[in-house]
Amino acid sequence: MSSNSNSQWGGRYAGGPSAVMQAINASIGFDREMWRQDIRGSLAHAAMLAHVGIISPEDETSIRDGLEAIAGEIERGEFPFSEALEDIHMNVEARLTERIGEAGKRLHTARSRNDQVALDVRLWTRDAIDGLDAQIADTMRALVERASEHAATVMPGFTHLQPAQPTTLGHHLLAYVEMLSRDRSRLADCRARMNESPLGAAALCGTGFPIDRHMTAAALGFDGPTRNSLDSVASRDYALEFLSACAICAVHLSRLAEEFVIWTNPYFGFVRLTDAYTTGSSIMPQKRNPDAAELVRAKPGRITGALVGLLTVMKGLPLTYGKDMQEDKEGIFDAAASLSLSLAATAGMVRDMRPDMARLKAAAGAGFSTATDLADWLVRELKLPFRDAHHVTGRLVALAEQKDVDLAGLSLEDLRSAEPRIHQGVYDVLSVEASVNSRTSYGGTAPANVAAMAAEWKARLA
Amino acid sequence: MSSNSNSQWGGRYAGGPSAVMQAINASIGFDREMWRQDIRGSLAHAAMLAHVGIISPEDETSIRDGLEAIAGEIERGEFPFSEALEDIHMNVEARLTERIGEAGKRLHTARSRNDQVALDVRLWTRDAIDGLDAQIADTMRALVERASEHAATVMPGFTHLQPAQPTTLGHHLLAYVEMLSRDRSRLADCRARMNESPLGAAALCGTGFPIDRHMTAAALGFDGPTRNSLDSVASRDYALEFLSACAICAVHLSRLAEEFVIWTNPYFGFVRLTDAYTTGSSIMPQKRNPDAAELVRAKPGRITGALVGLLTVMKGLPLTYGKDMQEDKEGIFDAAASLSLSLAATAGMVRDMRPDMARLKAAAGAGFSTATDLADWLVRELKLPFRDAHHVTGRLVALAEQKDVDLAGLSLEDLRSAEPRIHQGVYDVLSVEASVNSRTSYGGTAPANVAAMAAEWKARLA
Amino acid sequence: MSSNSNSQWGGRYAGGPSAVMQAINASIGFDREMWRQDIRGSLAHAAMLAHVGIISPEDETSIRDGLEAIAGEIERGEFPFSEALEDIHMNVEARLTERIGEAGKRLHTARSRNDQVALDVRLWTRDAIDGLDAQIADTMRALVERASEHAATVMPGFTHLQPAQPTTLGHHLLAYVEMLSRDRSRLADCRARMNESPLGAAALCGTGFPIDRHMTAAALGFDGPTRNSLDSVASRDYALEFLSACAICAVHLSRLAEEFVIWTNPYFGFVRLTDAYTTGSSIMPQKRNPDAAELVRAKPGRITGALVGLLTVMKGLPLTYGKDMQEDKEGIFDAAASLSLSLAATAGMVRDMRPDMARLKAAAGAGFSTATDLADWLVRELKLPFRDAHHVTGRLVALAEQKDVDLAGLSLEDLRSAEPRIHQGVYDVLSVEASVNSRTSYGGTAPANVAAMAAEWKARLA
Amino acid sequence: MSSNSNSQWGGRYAGGPSAVMQAINASIGFDREMWRQDIRGSLAHAAMLAHVGIISPEDETSIRDGLEAIAGEIERGEFPFSEALEDIHMNVEARLTERIGEAGKRLHTARSRNDQVALDVRLWTRDAIDGLDAQIADTMRALVERASEHAATVMPGFTHLQPAQPTTLGHHLLAYVEMLSRDRSRLADCRARMNESPLGAAALCGTGFPIDRHMTAAALGFDGPTRNSLDSVASRDYALEFLSACAICAVHLSRLAEEFVIWTNPYFGFVRLTDAYTTGSSIMPQKRNPDAAELVRAKPGRITGALVGLLTVMKGLPLTYGKDMQEDKEGIFDAAASLSLSLAATAGMVRDMRPDMARLKAAAGAGFSTATDLADWLVRELKLPFRDAHHVTGRLVALAEQKDVDLAGLSLEDLRSAEPRIHQGVYDVLSVEASVNSRTSYGGTAPANVAAMAAEWKARLA
Repeated sequence: MSSNSNSQWGGRYAGGPSAVMQAINASIGFDREMWRQDIRGSLAHAAMLAHVGIISPEDETSIRDGLEAIAGEIERGEFPFSEALEDIHMNVEARLTERIGEAGKRLHTARSRNDQVALDVRLWTRDAIDGLDAQIADTMRALVERASEHAATVMPGFTHLQPAQPTTLGHHLLAYVEMLSRDRSRLADCRARMNESPLGAAALCGTGFPIDRHMTAAALGFDGPTRNSLDSVASRDYALEFLSACAICAVHLSRLAEEFVIWTNPYFGFVRLTDAYTTGSSIMPQKRNPDAAELVRAKPGRITGALVGLLTVMKGLPLTYGKDMQEDKEGIFDAAASLSLSLAATAGMVRDMRPDMARLKAAAGAGFSTATDLADWLVRELKLPFRDAHHVTGRLVALAEQKDVDLAGLSLEDLRSAEPRIHQGVYDVLSVEASVNSRTSYGGTAPANVAAMAAEWKARLA
Repeated sequence: MSSNSNSQWGGRYAGGPSAVMQAINASIGFDREMWRQDIRGSLAHAAMLAHVGIISPEDETSIRDGLEAIAGEIERGEFPFSEALEDIHMNVEARLTERIGEAGKRLHTARSRNDQVALDVRLWTRDAIDGLDAQIADTMRALVERASEHAATVMPGFTHLQPAQPTTLGHHLLAYVEMLSRDRSRLADCRARMNESPLGAAALCGTGFPIDRHMTAAALGFDGPTRNSLDSVASRDYALEFLSACAICAVHLSRLAEEFVIWTNPYFGFVRLTDAYTTGSSIMPQKRNPDAAELVRAKPGRITGALVGLLTVMKGLPLTYGKDMQEDKEGIFDAAASLSLSLAATAGMVRDMRPDMARLKAAAGAGFSTATDLADWLVRELKLPFRDAHHVTGRLVALAEQKDVDLAGLSLEDLRSAEPRIHQGVYDVLSVEASVNSRTSYGGTAPANVAAMAAEWKARLA
Repeated sequence: MSSNSNSQWGGRYAGGPSAVMQAINASIGFDREMWRQDIRGSLAHAAMLAHVGIISPEDETSIRDGLEAIAGEIERGEFPFSEALEDIHMNVEARLTERIGEAGKRLHTARSRNDQVALDVRLWTRDAIDGLDAQIADTMRALVERASEHAATVMPGFTHLQPAQPTTLGHHLLAYVEMLSRDRSRLADCRARMNESPLGAAALCGTGFPIDRHMTAAALGFDGPTRNSLDSVASRDYALEFLSACAICAVHLSRLAEEFVIWTNPYFGFVRLTDAYTTGSSIMPQKRNPDAAELVRAKPGRITGALVGLLTVMKGLPLTYGKDMQEDKEGIFDAAASLSLSLAATAGMVRDMRPDMARLKAAAGAGFSTATDLADWLVRELKLPFRDAHHVTGRLVALAEQKDVDLAGLSLEDLRSAEPRIHQGVYDVLSVEASVNSRTSYGGTAPANVAAMAAEWKARLA
Repeated sequence: MSSNSNSQWGGRYAGGPSAVMQAINASIGFDREMWRQDIRGSLAHAAMLAHVGIISPEDETSIRDGLEAIAGEIERGEFPFSEALEDIHMNVEARLTERIGEAGKRLHTARSRNDQVALDVRLWTRDAIDGLDAQIADTMRALVERASEHAATVMPGFTHLQPAQPTTLGHHLLAYVEMLSRDRSRLADCRARMNESPLGAAALCGTGFPIDRHMTAAALGFDGPTRNSLDSVASRDYALEFLSACAICAVHLSRLAEEFVIWTNPYFGFVRLTDAYTTGSSIMPQKRNPDAAELVRAKPGRITGALVGLLTVMKGLPLTYGKDMQEDKEGIFDAAASLSLSLAATAGMVRDMRPDMARLKAAAGAGFSTATDLADWLVRELKLPFRDAHHVTGRLVALAEQKDVDLAGLSLEDLRSAEPRIHQGVYDVLSVEASVNSRTSYGGTAPANVAAMAAEWKARLA
C-alpha cells in the first residue's frame, strides 16, 4: 500500500491511529490462524460474484490465481504479515491487490468484514470439530481395546474414593467410552446447528447486489445460508456452544487423569505408566511423575476460562457487531488446541498403562467390598426387608472389622449372632468373583456384560 | 424414628454426626424441590419390583398407596421434613415406612441412593427443559407478532452502537427469533441425549437382582436404560450441558434487555415501556426505570456462575459418585428459575413496548446511514472497484459532515468533486426507504423479506 | 399500607406492576438477611437528622422506639414481610410508618435507597468478615495444636502425589496455617478498604440538606465517609474483593479436604476420621465416606461461581446504580455461608483426625524418599557438581528398584558401581530420621524448626 | 547437551518422552517471558552459595559472567531456545554449562525447580504490579486533569441509564479516580503480602545445605524468606489475588469504556473521540467506531477467564507441587498485558475526549431532573414529611409530562394544584445550576466540592 493510504479505512482518516490503538486493535497476531478459512471463503465468494455477473470471469481467474499464490506464500512462511493492516482479511486483500491490481479491489464487493469474519470463524470451528471428533474416536478406540482386554480384570469400584464393590477394569474404562460418546454427539449437534453460511449478510443488512447465498453456502459445505442478516453478524452462540462442549469433554478427561495420578501413586499401585508419560525430578532422581496426567487434569481450567470469558463478553451486547466480539477467537483457538493435546495424551496413556492385575485383585477384595452382596443375599434368601438386611450387614461388618478379618473370615456362628437364619450358602456370595459375576443387570459389571459391550463398541467404532 | 437409631446408615454408627456434619451434609433444604420426581421414580421402581417378583403385589399396592398419600401431604404443605433424615429420598422413605411398615423397607431393594438421585435429577432437568421450551416458544411468538407488525418500520441498524445502515424493527426482532430458535434446539438436543434411565445402576455396579431396567425406563418416559452402571451414577454432563444451554439463552435475552435499556433512554427514545415493566424511584419521582430489563440483563451472571461452579466441582473427580456432586442441584434449580423468569419478563416487555415510529425513522436517516448504498451505486453504475468506491464515499461523507448536510443534501457538483461521473440517478439510492427496499439478498432487511420470514415463523410456531 | 397506595413509588403509577415484574423485581426473599444492618443504619441516620435539626428530637425518639420494636418483631419471627413492598428497606419503613405515623415518613429525608442499600451491604459484609476472621483463627488454632503434637511425626512429603522426601505431619499442617494466615490478612485488607460510609450519597449526587456524614460514619464504626457520591452508590468492588478472598480461602480448604479424602482411603490409611465426620451408605454398610471433606472440596465451585457471576454483572455497567447490582447479595450471602461451613467442618476434621503414625513412618521411608539426601551427600562429601550427583543417584535408584531394596539396602559395592568414592558414611543420611533432621534451613522440615514455628503461631493466635 | 542424554532428568530415562509428552509438558513457549527473573534469581542464589562456602568464589564469578552473557544473548534475540529442554530454567542452565562447564552444574545445588519457578513467578508478578501501578496512577492523573477542567460542567447523572439528577462531568470522572485508587491499593496489598522469598524451600522440605535464605531474600528485594517450605512451593494464592485485582480493575475500566461507547453514540453526543481512538468501516465509510472503548469493555472477560481457570486448577490439589500449577503462568501474563493495554487505551481516551458542553447542559436539564430538588424543597420549606413530598412531586412530574413542559415551566397555579402552600421561592431550586450548587454534602456534586477534590487528588498524585 502506498504511504499516503496507510490504513484500510479510506480517505477520511488524516491522522493515523496511535500506537496504543494499533496495539489494542490489531488481531493479526492471532487471527492469521484462520488464513486457510479466509482464502477458502474468498474463493467461494469470487466464484459466486463471477457466476452472477458482478465481476468478470477474467477478474475471477485473476483473483483465484492470486489467492492461491498467497496461500502458497503463507504455507511457506514467506508472507509479509503486517500489523498495520490489522487482521488476516486486510492482509490477504492488500497483498492480493498488490499482486493482481484492480481486480483485487473488486473482491470485497457485496461483502463486509463483518460477514467475512463470521464466516471464517465458523469454518475454523467446523474444521476444529472435525479434527476433535476424530481424536475422540481414537481415544474411545484405545479405551475399548483395553476394556476388551480387561473385561474380567477385577478391581475395586469406588464411591467417595472408598472401595465400595468389586468391579472390573473393563467396566471402568467403558464408563469413559460412554462419556466420550456423548462428547462426540455434543460436538456433532453443535456442528449441525452452526452449519449455515453467514456470507452475504454483508455489514449487517444484506446487500442490494444480486448475490447467490445458496451457491456460496453449498460451495463451502454448509447446509444453506443463515436466515437473518443481523443475527448472522451479531451472534456467537456456536462459539459458546463449542467452548462448552470442549469444557465438558475436558472435564471427562480430567477425571481419568486424576485416576491415573491416584492409580500410579505407590500406595495404590494399580497401574504403571512408562517413561513415555512420566517425567523425573531435577532434584529427586527416584521420581516418576505423571506430568501428562496432571496437565490433562488441569486443562479444564483454561477451557472453562475461555468459556466464561466469551460469555462475559457477549452478555448484554447490543446488536449487531461490536469490536468486543473480536475476543472470541483466542479462546476458541486455545480451547481446541488444549483439548486436542489432552485427547492425544489420554489416548497415549490409556495405551501405555500397565495394570498390576494381582494388586487390583487384592484391593478388590479388601474393605468388606462384598457387603452389599451379603445384604442382597439376606433379602433374596431370608426375605429380610432391604433396610433390615442393611442393618444386619452393618453389624457384621463392624464385627469383622473388630476381629480384623474380612466377611468370608467370619464363622457361621459369628454370622448368626446378627441373624440366626444365616446358613452356609452365604459364603457363595462373599467372593470377589461371585460378586462381579452376579451383577448381570443391564449395564452391570458382570464380565460377560462388559465383554459384550466392548465388542459392540468395537464394531461401532470400526 | 426412635432415638437409638437416629441415622439412616444402619446399626454401625453409635455416635451421631456432629452438628456441623449435619449442616454440611443435609440437602433436604434444597432437594425437596425434586419430591415429585422422587415419588415418580419410586412408583416405577416398585411396579417393576412387583412385576419381576422381587416384592409381592400386595407390597406394591401398599407402597403405591403410601407414596400417593405422601405426595398429597407434601402438596398440602403438611409433610414433616426432617434435616436429620438428610435428603428428600430418606425423608420420603422413612415416612413411607412410618405409614405402611415392613413393605416400606422393601422399596429400596435393588436400588441405591446413587442411582435414585441420578434419576431424580434427570427427571427434574427434563421437566425443566420442557417448561423452558414452552416459554422460549412463547417469547418467539411475541417477537414474531411484533416483527410482523413492524416488518416495514425503519430504524437504524447499528454496529459498534453507531448507526450503520437503515434496517427495520421487524428484521431486528427476527434476529432474536433465530437466536431463540437455536436455544430451543440446544435444549432439545440436551434432552434427547440425557433421556436414558440410570435407575438400576444401583450403587455403582448394577445388581444381581433380576430387575428389568427397560421397564422402568419406559414407564418414566426414557428412550431406554443407560449402558454403563458406573457412568450412570458418576456423570453429570447433562447438567453441565443444561446449564450451558441456559447460559447461552440468557445471554441472548440479555442483549435484547440491554437494547431495551438503551432504547428507553430519553436520548434514544426508540421505544417506551409502560408502568407494567418499569419502576419509579424512592427519591426521584420522575423516573421510569427499566428494572425488569436490567435484571434480565444481569441474569447471565448467576447462570454462568452456576455453570462454572459445577464445571469446577466435576473437574478431576475420580469415579464414581462423590458427595461433591450434591452441589449440582442448587445451580440447576436456580438457573432454570432465573431463565424462566427472564423469559417471562422478555415476552412481557416485547408485548408491552411502544415503538416511536417517527423517531425511529428520523434516526434511521441520520448519520449518513445510506453511505453504503452510495458506494454500492458507484460499483454498480460506474463500475468502480469496491475499494475505490469506498474511498470516494468516504470523501463525500467528510464533505457532507463539513457542510452539515446529509448525503442527499450534497449537490451534484459536490458529488462530482469526488467522482466526476456521478449523475442524477444517485439520488434514488440515498433515501432510507430505497436503502431498506434494496436489500433483497436472502436474509436481508428488505421489508418484503422480513414480512415473508415473519409469516414463515408464525406458521412454524402455530 | 392502604390498598389505594399499593406501591412505594408514589402517585404516578396508576397501573400495578405485573406479576412477573413483581417476581423479578422483589428482593425481600433474600435481602431480609440484612435486616439488622438496615435498622442499624436507620438508627444512625435518624440520630444524625435530629442532631443537625432536620427532624425533631421527638421524631427521632419515636423512630428509634419504632425501629427497636420492629427489630423485636423480626427477631421473634412475627414480622409480616410483604413481597409487594419489594425489599427489606421498604418493608421496614412501611411498618415503621404503620406503627408511628408521620414521623416514619420523615426517616427517608436526605437519603435514598441507593445509599441505603450500599450501606446495608457494606455493613453486612463487614460483619461477615468479622465472623469469618474468627473462624479462620479457630481453624488455624486447630492446625497449630495438631502440628505441635506432630512436629516430629514423619510422613512422606509429596510432589505430583508421588512420595518425594520425608517430612513431618506438623510441617505439613503448618503449611495450611501459612495459607490461612494470608487469607485472614486478605480479608483484613478488604475490610480496611471498604470501611467507609456511603450513607449520605443519597440517590447519586449527595444532598442539599445539611447532613453530617462524618457523624453517621463514626456511629456505624466506619473510618469516615466515602469521598464521591456517584462512586458510593455505583461501586461494588468491595463485594468482588470479598468474594475473591472467600474463593481463595475455600481453595486452600479444598486442598486439605482432598488430602483427607486421599489419606482416609484404605490404601493410604494415613489418618482416620471418626463417625462424626464420615457417613455410611444406604446400600454398602461397610462404607465410611468422608462426606464432609468432599463437600469442603466442592465448595470453591459455588464461591467461584458467585465471584464470576458478580464480575459478569458489573462488567460494562454505566454509572451509577443499575438494578443489575441487586444481584450482588445472594452471591455474597451464599459465599459467606459456604465458607463458614467449610471452616467449621475443617476445624472439626483437623481436631477429629487420628493419624496412623506407624503407617506414616513406613510410607515415609518407601519409594527411595531419601534419594535427594544421597545426592546432597555426594555434593557435600565428594564435591560432585550437583548435576553429576543427581545423575549418579538416578543410577543407584534404578539399581535399587531392580534389586527390590531401598537405598539403604544397597551394599557399598553396589553404591560404588555408580561412584567409586562412596564410603560407609553415606548410610548416615539414608534414614528417614536423618533426612528430616537435616533440613534445618529456614522454613525447612526439621522437627526442631517445626516445633519452634508451631510455638510461635500458638503465641500469635493466643 | 550430548545426544545420548537428551533429557534433563538424569540417567534413568532410557526411552525419550513421546512427542505428545513433549508438547504437553514443554513450557518454554511461554515461560521464556520470565527470563529476566530467572537470571536475577540465579545470580542471587550463586552469590549466596559462594558467601556461605557451598561453591567457590571462582565458580560464582564464572556463573555470574555466564549468566550475564546469556542475558545478553536473550536480549539480542540470539539465544537458542530449545523445546527439548522444556522450560526457561533448564534452557538457561544447560546453556550456562555449555558456556562455563563444571561450575554451571553446581548452580542448582540446594535449589530445585520447584522453588526456582515459585521465585520466578513471584518476581515476574511483582514487576508486573509495579508497572501496572504506574499506569493506574497515570490514568488517574488523566482523569483528575479533565475533572479539574470540568468541575462545573453540568451533565445528567444517571441511574438505570435514565437521567436522575444533574451532576458535573468532573464529579463523574472523579468517581473513577476513587475506583482506580482502590485498585492501586489492592495491588499494593497483594504486593506486600506476596513479598517473601520462596528460594531455599528447595523441592519441598528445605535443605540440609547451610544456605542463607535471608540473604537471597534481601538481595532480591523481598521483606524476608517464606516460613514454611511446603507452602512455598505449593501455593499460588498471590497469583489468584493478582488476577482478582486485575479483573476488578478491568471491570472499572470497562464501565468507563461502556460510557464512551454510549456517549459517542450520536443520539447522546456527549463526547467525541478523535480518529486516534476510533476506526472506520470497510463497507460504511461514515462510521467512527469506538473500537478501543469496545475492547476495553471486553477485556474483563479474558481476565475473569484467567482467574476462573487458575481457581479451577488449584481447587482440590493436594500438596505440594503438581504439574497442574504450570497453568498459572499464561493466565498471569495475559491478564497483566490485557490490563496494561486497557489502562493505556483508557488514559488515551480520557485525554482525547472532546465533551460537547452545550449538549451536556441541555441534557442535564431535561427529563425533570430537578424533581428531587423540588421534593427536598417541600420538606425544607413546607415541612412535609419526605414521603408526602415525594408523592406531591410525583404528581407534578406527571402534570408537567402531560403539559409537555419541564418543572420550571409549570405555573404557580399548576404547582399549587398538588400542594396549595407552594410559593414563588420554589423556582429558585428548579434550575440545573441551583441543583448542582446545592449538593454540598461531603462527597456531593457541588462544583466547589468537585474542584477541591480534584485539587486534592492532583496533589496526591504529583
